[in-house]
Amino acid sequence: MSTPDSRMTTVGILGGGQLARMMALAGAPLGLRFLVMDSVADACAGQFAPMVVGDYTDESALAEFASRVDVATFDFENVPAESAQWLTSRVPVFPNPRALATAQDRLAEKTLFRDLGIPVPPFAVIDTREQLDAAVAEIGTPCILKTRRLGYDGKGQFRIKSPADIAAAWDALGAQAAKVGLILEGFVAFERELSVVAVRGRDGEFRAWPLTENWHVDGVLSASLAPATVDDAMAATAISHARKLAEALDYVGVLALELFCRDGELLANELAPRVHNSGHWTIEGSETSQFQNHLRAVLGLPLGDTRMVGQACMLNWIGAMPDANAVLREPGGHWHDYGKQPREGRKVGHATLRADSAQELIAVLERAGVALGRETQVAPVVVRLQG
Amino acid sequence: MSTPDSRMTTVGILGGGQLARMMALAGAPLGLRFLVMDSVADACAGQFAPMVVGDYTDESALAEFASRVDVATFDFENVPAESAQWLTSRVPVFPNPRALATAQDRLAEKTLFRDLGIPVPPFAVIDTREQLDAAVAEIGTPCILKTRRLGYDGKGQFRIKSPADIAAAWDALGAQAAKVGLILEGFVAFERELSVVAVRGRDGEFRAWPLTENWHVDGVLSASLAPATVDDAMAATAISHARKLAEALDYVGVLALELFCRDGELLANELAPRVHNSGHWTIEGSETSQFQNHLRAVLGLPLGDTRMVGQACMLNWIGAMPDANAVLREPGGHWHDYGKQPREGRKVGHATLRADSAQELIAVLERAGVALGRETQVAPVVVRLQG
Repeated sequence: MSTPDSRMTTVGILGGGQLARMMALAGAPLGLRFLVMDSVADACAGQFAPMVVGDYTDESALAEFASRVDVATFDFENVPAESAQWLTSRVPVFPNPRALATAQDRLAEKTLFRDLGIPVPPFAVIDTREQLDAAVAEIGTPCILKTRRLGYDGKGQFRIKSPADIAAAWDALGAQAAKVGLILEGFVAFERELSVVAVRGRDGEFRAWPLTENWHVDGVLSASLAPATVDDAMAATAISHARKLAEALDYVGVLALELFCRDGELLANELAPRVHNSGHWTIEGSETSQFQNHLRAVLGLPLGDTRMVGQACMLNWIGAMPDANAVLREPGGHWHDYGKQPREGRKVGHATLRADSAQELIAVLERAGVALGRETQVAPVVVRLQG
Repeated sequence: MSTPDSRMTTVGILGGGQLARMMALAGAPLGLRFLVMDSVADACAGQFAPMVVGDYTDESALAEFASRVDVATFDFENVPAESAQWLTSRVPVFPNPRALATAQDRLAEKTLFRDLGIPVPPFAVIDTREQLDAAVAEIGTPCILKTRRLGYDGKGQFRIKSPADIAAAWDALGAQAAKVGLILEGFVAFERELSVVAVRGRDGEFRAWPLTENWHVDGVLSASLAPATVDDAMAATAISHARKLAEALDYVGVLALELFCRDGELLANELAPRVHNSGHWTIEGSETSQFQNHLRAVLGLPLGDTRMVGQACMLNWIGAMPDANAVLREPGGHWHDYGKQPREGRKVGHATLRADSAQELIAVLERAGVALGRETQVAPVVVRLQG
């Protein structure tokens, strides 16, 4: 890398995965430079940005990072809140550490949802086996026992289908009660999973992208469709929930609110204090991508237009990349290889299929699904588009 | 930068300017890695790709470059053809050195145009002052004396308005006759300058973006509008010229053909054997950008769709960047800062304004023109859009 130029602003990103990588690619046209901090030297963002390699709790690595950046942000919400707090005394950090801390703790997050009048599934704090018994009785089954912290894509969760599963759930996660805390959540038999990806600027300006519908497989995002085929009232309610959260947290940057839709009602599931997998379609499917708008917000620049350009479906690649040609051959087919080594369960890339109409998108998805050998992955999206 | 990964393909780019920079940004989603070679260490592509710093004629630097890449291409057409030739014995090079050599030499280029039946302004080789006198008499004034090689954005040119200017022209450029050669070209009093940006794959597949109209100031591109407001027959003729050239040169990658339009007729001006300033609008204004399609071609991947997404106007920033906010505030306003130090005459960035209709584009251009203090720069584009 060439010598840093004092005229330029350097954005520091804690975490060097695909989100940091796509952020750097989106920020280059703004004339920004980047410095990525990650605990592993081959983090994929390091292919396009210089790195500081070190643990997020290593104060000397953090100090080096802070000394080389003008502003800091995250690609990873599980950076210790204390590290984020330590950084704020040296450099502006967006989003603020309180937002990060809230999103890191399922209890704080769900309490905030409730306090803001955003409907949530029933939940209870669990410190002991006795509390678990009582909470399962009150909330009913099925329900899910989860660690309060460090949950990510279905890890640290145990599904309790009937009271007979309580013992196994406590065996699996009980030891975490004293470490990171546990929470029991009522299981929502949802019809749809939706997400709001939105951005809030330093001056409080708020913009949301059109609502996205998401499909998960084994707890990991498999496909996203934007715009979600919901009525305007539901979309407005979802976006208003996201706005309340952003304002309550004095949030700056992109956030994602995951919601369940059941019987026409929305229930808040999770808040991600960062750019989000369900917003990857914005790179080609919107006038401004979530990555560029996150940077615009963090730097106090005007926010970009969040309108859609056509319709878009994002397909996630987990473990290994399929054949790129199946997507590259499609008009509107866009490929995203994160430059990672294949590994089971790892997010290694995605594709976005963009089209000008639902009919065209269905045709593209059906062709690409067959060519990729991913008929099952595209099927629920096609069914939804067919109405 | 992290250690190269053997699974990845590394693309080497000779020249580390904004074209290499935008190529690296467009190639990252394809999972590609890049290595840029430039004679200066602070070349702006080096902010997002590792570099080899060295002169293009330095064989040890070239050898290091070749040893670290899987395929090589150019951001700069004046790489010595011998260096390109030397590289081809070590690594695949696209476009091929013959295409490069042809485009480097105005005489070879114009001879090829003529041989392919592509209309060109009158031209003559000039080796001596006597030949210049005779050629001016034959071609008539105004005409332009140019160096055969190393011309770039109006450098190495002398305009002869009347025979009285011949002596001054010879004083200015005569010494170049023996070094790089000279050519006299008839001046074309054109109504429009157009360009075809097109791509040809390794398998011979050819695709062109919609025709672009260009405006130059002091010989440097100032603004581009796509699609150009010409009739279908003229667009088809222009694209057919570009296709003939690409096929004759067995060209692989993106090329640009600059044309003059006079009395409804097209005259070929210049061939650029690379991604081109008049194709920068494709980043936001087309389904596939010229940068990604160049890489797809070079790597033998399927070519992407060249259809437009709306209409687009590109404004070039020369010398210094204007206020970004004037563009970032506009829906459809996209900013491109190349991360360069300001310097007189230097291309430091561009903006693309994208809109869904001509009326909307006019409105955006007028607002942004005022906010930027660039009313003069946008005026000819607005006039053209108003028909």
